[in-house]
Amino acid sequence: MAIVRQTLVYGGPGGPFEGVIAYEDEIRTLRPGVLVIPNVRGLKEADVLKAEALAKLGYVGFACDVFGQGKRTTPESPDIAVYMKEMNADRAQLRDRLAASLETLKGFDRVDPAKTAATGFCFGGKCVLDMARAGLDFRGGVSFHGVYDRPDYANVAPIEAKLLICHGWEDPIAPPDAMVRLARELTESEADWQIHAYGNAGHAFTDHAAVKGNRPGVFYEERADRRSWQAMQDFLTELFA
Amino acid sequence: MAIVRQTLVYGGPGGPFEGVIAYEDEIRTLRPGVLVIPNVRGLKEADVLKAEALAKLGYVGFACDVFGQGKRTTPESPDIAVYMKEMNADRAQLRDRLAASLETLKGFDRVDPAKTAATGFCFGGKCVLDMARAGLDFRGGVSFHGVYDRPDYANVAPIEAKLLICHGWEDPIAPPDAMVRLARELTESEADWQIHAYGNAGHAFTDHAAVKGNRPGVFYEERADRRSWQAMQDFLTELFA
Repeated sequence: MAIVRQTLVYGGPGGPFEGVIAYEDEIRTLRPGVLVIPNVRGLKEADVLKAEALAKLGYVGFACDVFGQGKRTTPESPDIAVYMKEMNADRAQLRDRLAASLETLKGFDRVDPAKTAATGFCFGGKCVLDMARAGLDFRGGVSFHGVYDRPDYANVAPIEAKLLICHGWEDPIAPPDAMVRLARELTESEADWQIHAYGNAGHAFTDHAAVKGNRPGVFYEERADRRSWQAMQDFLTELFA
Repeated sequence: MAIVRQTLVYGGPGGPFEGVIAYEDEIRTLRPGVLVIPNVRGLKEADVLKAEALAKLGYVGFACDVFGQGKRTTPESPDIAVYMKEMNADRAQLRDRLAASLETLKGFDRVDPAKTAATGFCFGGKCVLDMARAGLDFRGGVSFHGVYDRPDYANVAPIEAKLLICHGWEDPIAPPDAMVRLARELTESEADWQIHAYGNAGHAFTDHAAVKGNRPGVFYEERADRRSWQAMQDFLTELFA
């Protein structure tokens, strides 16, 4: 058994986009497909590794791109958030770029297009929520230390996608009152939702590169990383049963 | 393989107590032991079934008793909460009765006394939290739709037991602000904690007997029941690894 990673260039508003899809080469039946939506920096090796980890679980993982080909930042960039800000200012276009990524996943020849899910990290967690809010056609999503502010369009009602929100209790970008507001929002939209709040974890708890002490409340936390990944596996198992 | 259930009568303040322990008869090695702490009614068949379900997972399950032998109520009792109220009024004695139950589990000849955990439902969830608050010697606990008011003694610091709190978002006995207070309390006590909040679930979400419509916010919810049981399994696996 070998994991294959393959670059996909695809169209959509603001495109072209460039993502990386990963799958177990020897599985010949159609597999559920799972988006991996990157954080503020856009697609990077850490996202491809998540897609590969999903491939090892038997899924097709697609580390996608909503910023556009070549639009990436690093912690050393003059403005690490430059592309994310563009999207935060145009949530309708963000939605359409997410839809383009989802369609690309569905169209991949190893994916069962009736069985898709999304995962996202930080800004990517917000993207997962927006996909559900916008009524995109996927079974469910997992937000890891996501951001909870609502878009400027109305939620579909009911939200059909199941949602698992993995939340660091010490997250300064999503403090407890933001988490409570999200719970109320999802309840009002009749979503099937769960929020897993992890004590002692902050923002970016899955991100090995987030060293404690650099930014208050932003740090890798091994227990929350491990537990949320297990919760995601249980969630995906339920979703595709 | 056969599950055996065995009645245990044991001592302690306010005793004698009567519980039921369940185990896989053919497992001859020492097993981790898991308390099942009943709800407001005290020990009943539903709790023994939980202990048996734990036995099927490879643990020794002990549906214990903190009210005292024969002290049980039913939904038809003049005051279903009569024995629970006594314990709510004397949390120090409740703690000592919990300690007696834990020691009984540890002393059972099929249990590895270094590997114990507690689960509890409703009032029993409060008991799990109190065991941790009081610093009883067990590895961790799971509260299912528990009650979060603090006892009148101070928490140990740090709380050593790991905690998983499975919470129904619509629970009128533990509304969102009580959940947030609990999170703050456990953080202040330096506990390793998680709260899993389930949308669309209220109090008693694991209780098949809680029919929707009888009491607002108190009802069985299949998804939260199933997901919290899975989360408990993941938690116990981590605890005894």
